Amino acid sequence: MGGGFAGLQAARKLARAPVTITLLDRHNHHVFQPLLYQVATAGLSPGDIASPIRWILSKQQNVRVLLADVAHVALAKRQVYLEDGVGIPYDFLILATGAAHSYFGRDDWQSHAPGLKTLDDALAVRRRVLLAFEQAERQPDPERQRHLLTFVVVGGGPTGVELAGTLIEIARHTLRREYDTIDPESARVVLIEAGSSILGTFPKPLRDSARRALRRLGVEVWENATVTEIEADAVHVGGDRVPAHTILWAAGVAASPLARTLGVPLDRAGRVIVEPDLTVPGFPNVFVAGDLARFTHQTGNPLPGVAQVAKQGGAHAAKSIRRRLKGQDALPFHYRDMGNMATVGRAAAVADLGWLQLTGFVAWLFWLFVHIFFLIGFRNRVSVLLQWASSYLTYQRSVRLITGPSPDSDVTPRNSAGC
Amino acid sequence: MGGGFAGLQAARKLARAPVTITLLDRHNHHVFQPLLYQVATAGLSPGDIASPIRWILSKQQNVRVLLADVAHVALAKRQVYLEDGVGIPYDFLILATGAAHSYFGRDDWQSHAPGLKTLDDALAVRRRVLLAFEQAERQPDPERQRHLLTFVVVGGGPTGVELAGTLIEIARHTLRREYDTIDPESARVVLIEAGSSILGTFPKPLRDSARRALRRLGVEVWENATVTEIEADAVHVGGDRVPAHTILWAAGVAASPLARTLGVPLDRAGRVIVEPDLTVPGFPNVFVAGDLARFTHQTGNPLPGVAQVAKQGGAHAAKSIRRRLKGQDALPFHYRDMGNMATVGRAAAVADLGWLQLTGFVAWLFWLFVHIFFLIGFRNRVSVLLQWASSYLTYQRSVRLITGPSPDSDVTPRNSAGC
Repeated sequence: MGGGFAGLQAARKLARAPVTITLLDRHNHHVFQPLLYQVATAGLSPGDIASPIRWILSKQQNVRVLLADVAHVALAKRQVYLEDGVGIPYDFLILATGAAHSYFGRDDWQSHAPGLKTLDDALAVRRRVLLAFEQAERQPDPERQRHLLTFVVVGGGPTGVELAGTLIEIARHTLRREYDTIDPESARVVLIEAGSSILGTFPKPLRDSARRALRRLGVEVWENATVTEIEADAVHVGGDRVPAHTILWAAGVAASPLARTLGVPLDRAGRVIVEPDLTVPGFPNVFVAGDLARFTHQTGNPLPGVAQVAKQGGAHAAKSIRRRLKGQDALPFHYRDMGNMATVGRAAAVADLGWLQLTGFVAWLFWLFVHIFFLIGFRNRVSVLLQWASSYLTYQRSVRLITGPSPDSDVTPRNSAGC
Repeated sequence: MGGGFAGLQAARKLARAPVTITLLDRHNHHVFQPLLYQVATAGLSPGDIASPIRWILSKQQNVRVLLADVAHVALAKRQVYLEDGVGIPYDFLILATGAAHSYFGRDDWQSHAPGLKTLDDALAVRRRVLLAFEQAERQPDPERQRHLLTFVVVGGGPTGVELAGTLIEIARHTLRREYDTIDPESARVVLIEAGSSILGTFPKPLRDSARRALRRLGVEVWENATVTEIEADAVHVGGDRVPAHTILWAAGVAASPLARTLGVPLDRAGRVIVEPDLTVPGFPNVFVAGDLARFTHQTGNPLPGVAQVAKQGGAHAAKSIRRRLKGQDALPFHYRDMGNMATVGRAAAVADLGWLQLTGFVAWLFWLFVHIFFLIGFRNRVSVLLQWASSYLTYQRSVRLITGPSPDSDVTPRNSAGC
């Protein structure tokens, strides 16, 4: 399984079923991924958007949680093998190991342009962004300073739009007046999208609204712009070389490599091509949910890798298992699209509910409500609300801490002494 | 300078003086160190007890904050040299670079028994403690399981007492009923103190009260017990070998190595032996404050390494500089002891105010009030209060996240895929 949206939802929906569940995850916590960009941009603490899986499921009697790395799955033997060789037999299996970044075959780009999938990713991005301002403050050469203060976000989907909007807010508002030699307002944020428009999955009026809002904030939005090369300190777009100290990756995802151990057909992104009931072809007792599944039976296009698809997929797998235990047939999965949302910087957003399209402040309020509502854990909700209220009123971002090992060279906190 | 209690206090007290201040620190944040053990034991987030130094001083016009590692100080040339060779000249210098752990010459113990001085230390300890329970859950061998669930804290000062009390609370209450194969309540917490009593600097009635409270909670308190050797998975006390997976160091501190670059007399802990006015002998324009200074002029004993001493020392240095600018003489430093406190697990503490000694719940309420009051940043205060209220009522600890690189081998989240 997995402790993401799909795995957790499946475990919960099996709470009263006559089964014993083993939930395997290599992290001890569930992350509310839609808010990961807030951790990366120092608006929230990791603890605000993550909860221990054990704690979430502690009231549920029929589930056992193990912190474990899964090495491979032997479908024919009905066994999941852990890293240390231990095999766990199963009657039913729900695979929901999610996705990682995809650099389209250019894995060498990964170290230059980190992505955003886990809490550790988010903390690394936070560190990189905050250090860029600190290094610029100590840099006398104006050109090198401009280079340090250039931020490039590759990929104009919701995550890219949210990162770019928040970065410009940090530079223009949060850090204003805190530095002497640099003017954080001169920071440059470039959002690069290969397709014809940012937020390609949204209706045109919302795409236009988001683009206008980003440009008003000061973000440079480049569309139809293909990244051809990424170096440690520059991005090549078409024939141009754009020098930038901080490059963030929000472009592609690939299914977790576990899928390759199954020996079943995968799509180009490494996802398992599932049957209409979300099972693996030939293995009706194995379900795939969330980002790991490629499901095209409903609209012809694969379902997107969002929380809703994962939750509904997990719930469907649980329901199918309950039906099968009663001797009934599994039903085909039917995804109910509740809409799409993305925030655009401070107090603006776009929301597409199908029957209603919202933009600006109203959309942002709606976004706020929905995200607070779905956050797991009451303590988290109160804390997040408080921090948002405070940062909205004061333009401050409370978690501007540089911690952890440094990927950089210049200003490196180390074990040696300092002042 | 430094961005700890002494450095910050000095900078603030010079706000209206006709000086230009450069504050150097190798971290971008000030840490409220008295609550570091709460981060290590998953009660608070790093963001709750730390604030960016830039932000704390952003209203103050005459201060410049640099994130920088100081390599050495050339007292004769009046220059501070940074890691990258840049020299910063000064008229007055306040050295407040604090202390690191001291392993009494056994630096090889450091990797087996991490200490608690920085946010990164605290996150590493949190990771180690939480992983021990996860590994025990997957361990079929009962002896190996007992080993994983044995926690040893070396050093019975306030930090050691607070760590031991919180660890036993986590095992006996927080994690109860969340595991299948292990009983977290069977966890063993041993507190080892080389001196004749824990909390040696407190009056006898308070020491006795703390010892009783710890033992009631289930902590094994070993006094007059000298650690002779630390291995990766065991502590030697006298002739006995105590197997323990998690060993935490709360015993000794040593002044930051920067002191050794000064070429002035140091004490055995590497602290600068200062004049009655906190200056370096022979250099009346260089002050030393906080854990870096050895000041014995008041009582014959060196002042302890606590926040109050640091704050008052920093304020004294600032005052002396203001006096000297007006042509007046510097005054001798006089430390005003406001009392000592330590918590003992859940809702108990000891507090020695000199004229009043408190124990139990009343002392704990007092401790709570004082710590909340001195926390920097309003947002932090509200957030910390909320989390304490919630964890007091529910026995829950909200930040039980295992993040960051692993020092361990068995259950290692890595970049590869998992379930």
